[in-house]
Amino acid sequence: MNNDSQLSNIDQTGLFDFKIVAQDGNARAGEFTTPHGVLQTPVFAPVGTQATVKAITPAQLEELSATLVLSNTYHLFLRPGDERVARMGGLHEFMQWHKPMLTDSGGFQVFSLSNMRKVDEDGVTFKSHIDGSMKRLTPESSIQIQENLGADIIMAFDECSDPNNRSYVEQAMERTHRWAQGCLDAKKRDDQALFGIVQGGIFDDLREQSARAISAMGFPGHAIGGLSVGETKAEMYHSIEVVNEVLPANKPRYLMGVGTPEDLIEGVLRGIDIFDCVLPTRLARHNSAMTMSGRLNMMNATFAEDRRPIDEQCTCYTCRTFTRAYLRHLIVAKEMLAATLLSIHNLHTLLQLARDLRQAIFEGHLQAFADEAMAKLNIPRTPER
Amino acid sequence: MNNDSQLSNIDQTGLFDFKIVAQDGNARAGEFTTPHGVLQTPVFAPVGTQATVKAITPAQLEELSATLVLSNTYHLFLRPGDERVARMGGLHEFMQWHKPMLTDSGGFQVFSLSNMRKVDEDGVTFKSHIDGSMKRLTPESSIQIQENLGADIIMAFDECSDPNNRSYVEQAMERTHRWAQGCLDAKKRDDQALFGIVQGGIFDDLREQSARAISAMGFPGHAIGGLSVGETKAEMYHSIEVVNEVLPANKPRYLMGVGTPEDLIEGVLRGIDIFDCVLPTRLARHNSAMTMSGRLNMMNATFAEDRRPIDEQCTCYTCRTFTRAYLRHLIVAKEMLAATLLSIHNLHTLLQLARDLRQAIFEGHLQAFADEAMAKLNIPRTPER
Repeated sequence: MNNDSQLSNIDQTGLFDFKIVAQDGNARAGEFTTPHGVLQTPVFAPVGTQATVKAITPAQLEELSATLVLSNTYHLFLRPGDERVARMGGLHEFMQWHKPMLTDSGGFQVFSLSNMRKVDEDGVTFKSHIDGSMKRLTPESSIQIQENLGADIIMAFDECSDPNNRSYVEQAMERTHRWAQGCLDAKKRDDQALFGIVQGGIFDDLREQSARAISAMGFPGHAIGGLSVGETKAEMYHSIEVVNEVLPANKPRYLMGVGTPEDLIEGVLRGIDIFDCVLPTRLARHNSAMTMSGRLNMMNATFAEDRRPIDEQCTCYTCRTFTRAYLRHLIVAKEMLAATLLSIHNLHTLLQLARDLRQAIFEGHLQAFADEAMAKLNIPRTPER
Repeated sequence: MNNDSQLSNIDQTGLFDFKIVAQDGNARAGEFTTPHGVLQTPVFAPVGTQATVKAITPAQLEELSATLVLSNTYHLFLRPGDERVARMGGLHEFMQWHKPMLTDSGGFQVFSLSNMRKVDEDGVTFKSHIDGSMKRLTPESSIQIQENLGADIIMAFDECSDPNNRSYVEQAMERTHRWAQGCLDAKKRDDQALFGIVQGGIFDDLREQSARAISAMGFPGHAIGGLSVGETKAEMYHSIEVVNEVLPANKPRYLMGVGTPEDLIEGVLRGIDIFDCVLPTRLARHNSAMTMSGRLNMMNATFAEDRRPIDEQCTCYTCRTFTRAYLRHLIVAKEMLAATLLSIHNLHTLLQLARDLRQAIFEGHLQAFADEAMAKLNIPRTPER
């Protein structure tokens, strides 16, 4: 099913390389070389929407052993502007993150955040959520913006649609394919890997068709878009299987916007290499701690004098240092430090899970790891087909 | 003028000790031993009102080489409650700050924060600013609360008054003296040093009278209260001189709630050893950067593409790492990280200034240092009498 016979060397520049170093069923452990370092996959990418992972310094991210950080083209295009970021030396330099970075294309945000959007064959016109001004993104301008930002991995501009409405999904998918080619044609920088995005909603035939069309274009890596947006978990996991059967195995696979512990586990089992999600930092700002045995609302009065850390197994700075009682106090007292400490903990949970999944692949017992972890999370496994 | 002939050994327990290791005019460099370590004075104490220095982790405070941290009795009494803090192991353990701590007495906050306060001979009844409930603080309960919190340095309960209204100032001062004795009598823990507070507004004779009365009570250290609350700078500096002529030179002197660069300089010149202020962290949350050449409003549009750090001379994490352009972006984008990075910088400015003043005392050129620093700040020096 591969349209590329080489196992590494995913592009012509030699700057990018993807090597599968261990396999367990459909799951893979890889080494994805980028101009800013090697990603050990599976990897979870914290999201730094506005060129900052909210409430966290780059030094704290380093301490978490984070590697890949995602930032949002839509937000940076609007503020402070991609040309300004370019004049400041690019995104790595601007936000002082010197490890690999990924920018999305703006497609998803245009459809989820802006009002009054109008899609035409060449792009999308929309109203800025910041100042109400009219803006436009096209495959060509999205690439131009992402070249100005300068992330290592950039994404094709795609149209996201309600995953259940077949005629719209089909139309959006076909446009996404034409735009993917437009992105490839527009790309000028050699030091960025452009990933194609598979769409197709919850329809197997469309997902398969999209995976074939995108695979055929020769992208160095592929993403699965349009999931985790309203479909059931079973539908999402099934779609991943359908797509990954088509996508070339020797190139990295990125499941966009997905980041619960259970989705990382089920995704890795189905051959996903890269994940990103705002969930850990967003939940942190809403007082929720993610653990491998479920979420804790840290404002809960039962924690008022609880001297345990959030998670006795966890090795993050927050759990090594502070009690639940203190964290609850910070939340009740509306102290900013609560968001910082919970963000550190939640990010650690997902970063460590990705590392543990990688280790389980090396050791060849991923199924047992997954069964045990899902049982602890108290979530039924969704068996692979 | 000293009522104590020993230069160190400021109390009977042997847990506290104050040694003057260098002098330059009225200024002194000291070593103040406490149960949680030695303070190199002059020292600036960041304020952690609600058991957290806002927007900063203890690890970041350590990286700033902060030593003494202040926390507020009034706030912790109301939330989470001093008894709860005691059950959690005390304030050091609760907030995970293992270096010296100081708590104020709640006196100042009762007078500045609460509504509907009623002072009587035995204490103050007031309405909580949090839930509107009626609360009461007395010299005895303030000490009890501070013993529950467990800071190294605790403060006598005092009455703060409008510094210009002589008859009220006199009445409040006399009550403060009676309360000071009440605090001494109420104190039970040996591992805390209780400081007496000198009041007296802007009236030289009252300040002198208060300094004599408080000095005579045998406290191991003394504070000057009721300054920086509306009087002129000249009046404040003059009051410090009047009081310090009376206070025993061999015990530490603490100027409460004062923390601009110019006030640290003028205070140290007049023999102050300890300062605290919310200013650096509060200004940080209002986008203002403190430097030794004045304040910068970091939201200023002129910084939009300024690649310099806040202060090219500064060695803090923020200045070593980030541009003004990036900090401005964080502020404009309403990102929490702005408050964290500016708090780090502003605290560094005052912590470093205190270290530089100490060094200048050792080198015997404090006057020259002060003249140069004040010229750079563009603030006229206020000569000592």
